[in-house]
Amino acid sequence: MTLDPGAGASQAPAQGTPGRLNHSIGAFEPELGGVLNDVTLAYETWGELNADADNVVLITHALTGDSHAAGGPCAEHRRGGWWDPMVGPGRPVDTGKYFVVCSNVLGGCSGSTGPSSVDSETGEPYGMRFPVVTIRDMVRAQKRLLDDLGVSGLALVIGGSIGGQQALEWAVEFPDFVEKAVPVAATGALGPQGVGMSEIGRRAIMADPGWQNGDYYDTGKTPEEGLAIARMAGMMTYQSAPGQWERFGRRPAGRPALHKEFGGRFEIESYLHYQGNDLVGRFDANSYLYLGRAMDLYDVANGYGSTEEALSRVCAELLFVGITSDWLFPASEVKDTADKASRAGARSNYVEIDTLSGHDAFLKDWTELEQAVKPFITNT
Amino acid sequence: MTLDPGAGASQAPAQGTPGRLNHSIGAFEPELGGVLNDVTLAYETWGELNADADNVVLITHALTGDSHAAGGPCAEHRRGGWWDPMVGPGRPVDTGKYFVVCSNVLGGCSGSTGPSSVDSETGEPYGMRFPVVTIRDMVRAQKRLLDDLGVSGLALVIGGSIGGQQALEWAVEFPDFVEKAVPVAATGALGPQGVGMSEIGRRAIMADPGWQNGDYYDTGKTPEEGLAIARMAGMMTYQSAPGQWERFGRRPAGRPALHKEFGGRFEIESYLHYQGNDLVGRFDANSYLYLGRAMDLYDVANGYGSTEEALSRVCAELLFVGITSDWLFPASEVKDTADKASRAGARSNYVEIDTLSGHDAFLKDWTELEQAVKPFITNT
Repeated sequence: MTLDPGAGASQAPAQGTPGRLNHSIGAFEPELGGVLNDVTLAYETWGELNADADNVVLITHALTGDSHAAGGPCAEHRRGGWWDPMVGPGRPVDTGKYFVVCSNVLGGCSGSTGPSSVDSETGEPYGMRFPVVTIRDMVRAQKRLLDDLGVSGLALVIGGSIGGQQALEWAVEFPDFVEKAVPVAATGALGPQGVGMSEIGRRAIMADPGWQNGDYYDTGKTPEEGLAIARMAGMMTYQSAPGQWERFGRRPAGRPALHKEFGGRFEIESYLHYQGNDLVGRFDANSYLYLGRAMDLYDVANGYGSTEEALSRVCAELLFVGITSDWLFPASEVKDTADKASRAGARSNYVEIDTLSGHDAFLKDWTELEQAVKPFITNT
Repeated sequence: MTLDPGAGASQAPAQGTPGRLNHSIGAFEPELGGVLNDVTLAYETWGELNADADNVVLITHALTGDSHAAGGPCAEHRRGGWWDPMVGPGRPVDTGKYFVVCSNVLGGCSGSTGPSSVDSETGEPYGMRFPVVTIRDMVRAQKRLLDDLGVSGLALVIGGSIGGQQALEWAVEFPDFVEKAVPVAATGALGPQGVGMSEIGRRAIMADPGWQNGDYYDTGKTPEEGLAIARMAGMMTYQSAPGQWERFGRRPAGRPALHKEFGGRFEIESYLHYQGNDLVGRFDANSYLYLGRAMDLYDVANGYGSTEEALSRVCAELLFVGITSDWLFPASEVKDTADKASRAGARSNYVEIDTLSGHDAFLKDWTELEQAVKPFITNT
């Protein structure tokens, strides 16, 4: 691997995840206003950069993901990389061939600058004084990281959910830099049902007295209950009704109770409690607010005259992946975005994963996912 | 109208809604345990009871409804009866022909005994010491009211959502008493997605420090924010994704803000805030918990060997009404319940309302609803 981190770069291993590096991209101006004096992105890489620095794959993570897309279990990642079956030698994202980069998003809480970071001007965590950041901001920050790493172009950018929004935005924002883009389970703009579910989670966090208008850091009190409820609402949008019938049905809970009984307890409730509780231990509530808001606000047409005008900028070949039972980003809307890209002149493909897993399929239905994306990735 | 309220009955006009009466059905033992020493049901009637006391229609209301199914606006009901277009002279439920009864459910907060009622043993409101009540309990309480009113049988029982669960339960629990039953937008048992959404609302209420384990009455503090969030989660299940695209899309909010801006505000968010806020002013949070739990717990098979065994008890002719875009009680599951009733030997019919209105269609798509149910009601 040959890296030229550039003059302004500072690299130091981040804590908790071996192999994770921190890199400063300097000052950053989010598109909706405000300024961040010094933005750090945490990232990981796999494989070797070639001499032309163009064998690069960027993996963009989803809402509560992070840079640890691949690799084995570690202290922070008991189950290993969140996309590990997709990334490695001989896998769809082949680390024998590609130099693979995954960075924690701007606004996140796993090493990259976000609301829990200390504002150097005040010496205090940003909290809700952190500027609103968008999918485009995340992509622009990633571009600065790649530039500093000496990358000359992306052979592929791929991700699911808000990672899929980033993949699409990459192709629109930096058309000459991207050869292929694979937005999985993502559209040009989230629908009102998704925005509504997102808002339920936000209100739950903000209504929690532990939230304290976002200034809960170092108070010994956090919006745990609110974040857990937000996660529960999120989990509902990641699964499908038939999938939940199959997995949970109306069976009584088997797990230990996290909350008081009230006329019995269903497995689905117990599962939601568990998932809510699990996120509280590993994710910052303010980051959850900011990243969810970025998902809601994203519209590929933002800043252009129309969706078509935005999509007409694309030079990359696109593969949109829809999931039949997805209700956060319904397959019909993913296909509609793919069709719009075609009509706008892009080389746009669409493939559908037929599953009951819902939106979550991109994080678990490995065989189907590989079948959907591998031919597109390997076809040169 | 000829009424024999029976020896134990006490009738007095309830406050707030002209025409609403209170009736004591005495002590009541909910099926899952506990005892209520003195249960009052608030109810309203329209039309005249005939000499045989068998021209009776019972209307069963949904989660946040009450006895005011029909009639004009009053102080408590600015928009009039919640099913007014369905009930009146010449309307599908014809008050020129039928004696129509609608009572607020056991566990409710609009005159009937519920968690906000004072427990005569302690002199304090029940709060969460109120026993868990079921759909079957609601139906058994209604039966006692009808017996006291001298009603000899139901020509029809009809309702939507948990009102539909009650209509179905009536036909199973009191097979000889019911001639026709019309469960609208209801199945034999709610699916895990519905239970999960319900649990999100419950946790939001219970996490609100104003809830105080249910003992918030007379403390000057109520779980307003939690109840509003629960209502928002409920509203999501009452609408459909395509319906929300049509009605709200991604349009910015036009209403005054009830909550702080955070990177802009969408119409769907503003609508949810409004709906949440609106319920807070008119509904008791503990009642919301109990009635939602009754919806979750209802399984027509409860107490029988199977769904089929339960449905084989039915003597009434059934009409199940499904709503194509309903995701709380999906049309396919309503149809499945209708089919199971047929296979169990019941005279079971199924009709579908094709609409984008979602679950809420039974409270707004009047023309379609009338077309769906009127032929069945008037066919003798």
